[in-house]
Amino acid sequence: MANARGPYAKSTRVRAAAVEAAAELFGGAGYRGATFKDVADKLGMTAAGLSYYFPDKDSLLRAVLEERDRPAVTAETALPPSPSHAELTDHVMAILSENIGHPGLAELHCVLSAEATSADHPAHEHFRDRYRKARELLTDALSAAAAHGEIRSSVPPRALATLLLSVLDGVQLQWLLDPEEVDLRETVRAFVSDLLAPSSPA
Amino acid sequence: MANARGPYAKSTRVRAAAVEAAAELFGGAGYRGATFKDVADKLGMTAAGLSYYFPDKDSLLRAVLEERDRPAVTAETALPPSPSHAELTDHVMAILSENIGHPGLAELHCVLSAEATSADHPAHEHFRDRYRKARELLTDALSAAAAHGEIRSSVPPRALATLLLSVLDGVQLQWLLDPEEVDLRETVRAFVSDLLAPSSPA
Repeated sequence: MANARGPYAKSTRVRAAAVEAAAELFGGAGYRGATFKDVADKLGMTAAGLSYYFPDKDSLLRAVLEERDRPAVTAETALPPSPSHAELTDHVMAILSENIGHPGLAELHCVLSAEATSADHPAHEHFRDRYRKARELLTDALSAAAAHGEIRSSVPPRALATLLLSVLDGVQLQWLLDPEEVDLRETVRAFVSDLLAPSSPA
Repeated sequence: MANARGPYAKSTRVRAAAVEAAAELFGGAGYRGATFKDVADKLGMTAAGLSYYFPDKDSLLRAVLEERDRPAVTAETALPPSPSHAELTDHVMAILSENIGHPGLAELHCVLSAEATSADHPAHEHFRDRYRKARELLTDALSAAAAHGEIRSSVPPRALATLLLSVLDGVQLQWLLDPEEVDLRETVRAFVSDLLAPSSPA
């Protein structure tokens, strides 16, 4: 970044501001509900001016997915290969704390992943592959944990991995809709610390 | 319906077709991504022609929510007040079969509920209240079931109710994104029949 000054620095700043604005609009109105011009308006630019940095709405979406979808994946890969039950609980609660601290990102993920269920949505492959990778990583970790008697072994690890991701998404949806009524932390904690616990004392 | 002929019958048919078209577009592009004109186009009508039946996009949304969101609520209220573990499992699997038979409705619910997390979305109150009612109904049923030793009692029934709704939504999201890889029925069945089972033999 030794040359990050002058026009280059400005370009970096505008790009970062555009990704920020697009993430906010996509999280609120959805990718399909927000227009390229909405993003330009939010930045106080013309659409032609914004197109100098991002040619179209698709390129904005790609940048948002690359830069905003990172925390959760990083967190997923930080799970030890054979976690103890306590490590698994701590790991899930850490992901959750990050989401609670950034409700805008939680909403962005919620809205874009739902929109992306349409096979023709530009983020369809991104979310399909992201969930595939997350299920694989979690399945491996939960298999190892089950083999060591750290979590319940009565259900296939792959089903537990799918359920854990579902619980994170589904409880967050209810919490985003109704933050006063839904205790996101305690509900998810109950799932991991109690429902995933080994059936009989190890 | 003795007078359901002539202009009245036509009006009923057009309204039904408009709700059908709107539900399909809202489930694909989202409420915010689809325009009033998109609905009219799909019906081969002009926007002015459609506005004779529905004045605006909001009134179409209200009709879609009233007519399409019905099956799940009906199914929820059909749960016995104190279900056995087997009755609870059957009930959940019946809701799921209905959703699998109508993937368009599952997608509509997925997309609209995610969009509705924005406090200014016209369906925000609808979904907030729908989940409140579902959590209440399920909490009562699960409390009674836990008191009779039919399901696990180590977690508060309210948390189990929130988790059950989350699992239905979250596994459906993964299934809509990747139907070949995600076994919706077996994953949800594992949650209800195994994870919700009483911790020790009753």
